[in-house]
Amino acid sequence: MSQNPQFSGLLTDLYELTMAAGYRKAGFDARATFELFVRGLPPRRNYLVAAGLAQAIEYLERVHFSADEIEYLRRHPVFAGIGEDFFDFLAHFKFTGDIWAVPEGTVTFPDEPIVRVTGPIAEAQIVETYLLSAIHFQTLIASKAARVVTAARGRRVVEFGTRRAHGPEAGVLAARAAFIGGCSGTSNVAAGHRFGIPVFGTQAHSWIMAFEDEKEAFRRFLDIFPKNAVLLLDTYDVRAAVETILAMGRKPRGVRLDSGDVAEASVWIRRRLDEAGWNDVEIFASGDLDEDRIEAMLAAGARIDSFGVGTALTTSSDAPSLSVIYKLVEVETGGTVRNAAKFSAAKVTYPGKKQIFRRQDGQGKFTEDIIALEDESVSRAGPLLELVMRAGRSVAPPTDLGTAQQRCLEQVARLPDAVRGLAACPAYPVRHSERLVELLDEVRRRVERAAR
Amino acid sequence: MSQNPQFSGLLTDLYELTMAAGYRKAGFDARATFELFVRGLPPRRNYLVAAGLAQAIEYLERVHFSADEIEYLRRHPVFAGIGEDFFDFLAHFKFTGDIWAVPEGTVTFPDEPIVRVTGPIAEAQIVETYLLSAIHFQTLIASKAARVVTAARGRRVVEFGTRRAHGPEAGVLAARAAFIGGCSGTSNVAAGHRFGIPVFGTQAHSWIMAFEDEKEAFRRFLDIFPKNAVLLLDTYDVRAAVETILAMGRKPRGVRLDSGDVAEASVWIRRRLDEAGWNDVEIFASGDLDEDRIEAMLAAGARIDSFGVGTALTTSSDAPSLSVIYKLVEVETGGTVRNAAKFSAAKVTYPGKKQIFRRQDGQGKFTEDIIALEDESVSRAGPLLELVMRAGRSVAPPTDLGTAQQRCLEQVARLPDAVRGLAACPAYPVRHSERLVELLDEVRRRVERAAR
Repeated sequence: MSQNPQFSGLLTDLYELTMAAGYRKAGFDARATFELFVRGLPPRRNYLVAAGLAQAIEYLERVHFSADEIEYLRRHPVFAGIGEDFFDFLAHFKFTGDIWAVPEGTVTFPDEPIVRVTGPIAEAQIVETYLLSAIHFQTLIASKAARVVTAARGRRVVEFGTRRAHGPEAGVLAARAAFIGGCSGTSNVAAGHRFGIPVFGTQAHSWIMAFEDEKEAFRRFLDIFPKNAVLLLDTYDVRAAVETILAMGRKPRGVRLDSGDVAEASVWIRRRLDEAGWNDVEIFASGDLDEDRIEAMLAAGARIDSFGVGTALTTSSDAPSLSVIYKLVEVETGGTVRNAAKFSAAKVTYPGKKQIFRRQDGQGKFTEDIIALEDESVSRAGPLLELVMRAGRSVAPPTDLGTAQQRCLEQVARLPDAVRGLAACPAYPVRHSERLVELLDEVRRRVERAAR
Repeated sequence: MSQNPQFSGLLTDLYELTMAAGYRKAGFDARATFELFVRGLPPRRNYLVAAGLAQAIEYLERVHFSADEIEYLRRHPVFAGIGEDFFDFLAHFKFTGDIWAVPEGTVTFPDEPIVRVTGPIAEAQIVETYLLSAIHFQTLIASKAARVVTAARGRRVVEFGTRRAHGPEAGVLAARAAFIGGCSGTSNVAAGHRFGIPVFGTQAHSWIMAFEDEKEAFRRFLDIFPKNAVLLLDTYDVRAAVETILAMGRKPRGVRLDSGDVAEASVWIRRRLDEAGWNDVEIFASGDLDEDRIEAMLAAGARIDSFGVGTALTTSSDAPSLSVIYKLVEVETGGTVRNAAKFSAAKVTYPGKKQIFRRQDGQGKFTEDIIALEDESVSRAGPLLELVMRAGRSVAPPTDLGTAQQRCLEQVARLPDAVRGLAACPAYPVRHSERLVELLDEVRRRVERAAR
């Protein structure tokens, strides 16, 4: 329990290891390509913001199996009789493949490969679960954050949701992803330390409740943080709290509302503060906010300078998962390349190594994406996937979070208006190239022949 | 990035540190009690299953601030001028408080303290965020798992959802919580290694797609895992796959269905397997399952032996968060005890150190919970909160996961039938003792007097 398991090869589903053992044992010495993509959008999501690549790459560079972990696997009944080769393989395990990916902060759509992995099939299989998990979660949260930031129309949004994220580490990663999606910062100090994200904070109800009365609690806080005190108004009664602060005559940096009819209260508070000449005292709002509530509050004339958004953002509460998958698209054995596809009743995946090409109009607005084979050239369209890892070594500079956020904000601004909006809209046009459609048919015919 | 940040004191919201600095600076040398509880149930949840305590206790025993982390805080503008005392305090930081908690696997309800923390106020404040995050997430997932296990009516449920959990670490914790909630195991190997949970796995579509044809893929897998092969049927065509396996005449341990009309397919498959005398070949089902789909499949006569439940379980998809909070209930300074409460318009919290008392009828069925002050005695009712940490040291044996699961299953069985069911029902009776109600009034009057 005490060792740091963050780069453990065991962070995977058992079947990945079983299949890896099987490929080894079968002497199936193939080089495989898998693509990681999202199958469809949740209701009311019109686009995705890719994130989590830095954590995926860091894992791929460092993943390994400790002696203790290999001992553990030896004792699992499924590996009884698998032989020493597999355990030797794990003891020396390194990921040696190539990775193509869209940079973090890139706007993407369903079916578009966010990450493409090519490597020895056993390696590419073992890392599947971690890659899905790392890319899925941050993409989920960055995509939600972009909506919340859109709703705030230029006002500051700070991620406040660590306490209800899915565990402490999810809180740190959510802060990172929310920043990529356009948030100004987080309340999570570890995220600030690890990733250089701006960290914000005010005071909790407990500070107010800890002292004899509210006035005493405010006074003490102003004494200690004369320049940074943001006073919480709703422990007992909001208007009384505002009058207490005004009567003290000491200007805080800001005030925070965490419950009640925040829009209405903010209008009254702004007026009272302005009457006192405190035009520069900021009003923060928090408390079960999401993009819909922010939109509604602003539509109702709320006078709010900053929003603290918690649970809805760090859990993507209206859509807490994406249908992300990792599919085999090509197998190369002994110089022969075979394309792979899946076409059970409900679910089709396209074969072949792909690239995303994006078109734009004269104003720079995005108009259409074409998913094509990587060696196709698509007119008037730029490719989105970049080589970020070659033979297990990172070849791209580490993600700069400011750049990733800028990329996200710029790309969101270039989306068609309806796609950028909060309401569900007809899908942004994404199509597969003719060569891809032909290739899918070809694979289907091959598999049908084999089944006869 | 490379150091293990899992016990970092920075895993908190900035305002916790700001308030801690404030309490120190103000010389506010109080001993505070906070209670962690859930404010209300999400729709269609009738009860909660407490989980995550072991991770909370481990953190409390080991939390600290590294020199590098303290250096980071020094550079944050909010701490400019706070003085050396605070940084010294952090450099020597240890949690020295007492913890009362319900054992993991305990069925609980809204307003009932799951964890109660008493300690120096600055310490108890700093650990708030981590405690909320650790207890919240596993309680959320254990509570969801209990529903899924109820729906499966005695069939095995295995947690399969790491890939869409909220990051790799959330996947490991979800597996632990799902086991407490009654799942038989997980696909997550790290969870098996760290927590001793049984680990299960089959094969993925990629195995089938990697080989020339399906028959070759099945044959190879049976060669390598003669006793443990669970063959995946739906890569191309389910019935064709079953006929291929039957024609090979080699009995797998099981078969898995991951898409399509699983209930209908399972009936047909069971008949074909039985006709071949393969009555002991198990049928596994997976693919976007949740408690409702499992209930519907079984109602439709599905012949399924094991369910693999993924995303819906590891994200608690229909309710991805609980309204968990951590509220100050008592402050002791210089020998004086003051009870604390909050009663803004929307949200009331009760003051005082509490205990949960549970009543049962002659058959052992739970009938009513009473939340009372810890020193009250409640007739015909047993207390649920236990002392698990004294002065910063664990005094309870570590959670045994088998025991926790047993506790959960037994307690769920003792719930009133409607409460145990999947449909929303009138709330299980939970009330506050008369003394608590009086104490709340008393605090309210005191605060109102002070505000005049």
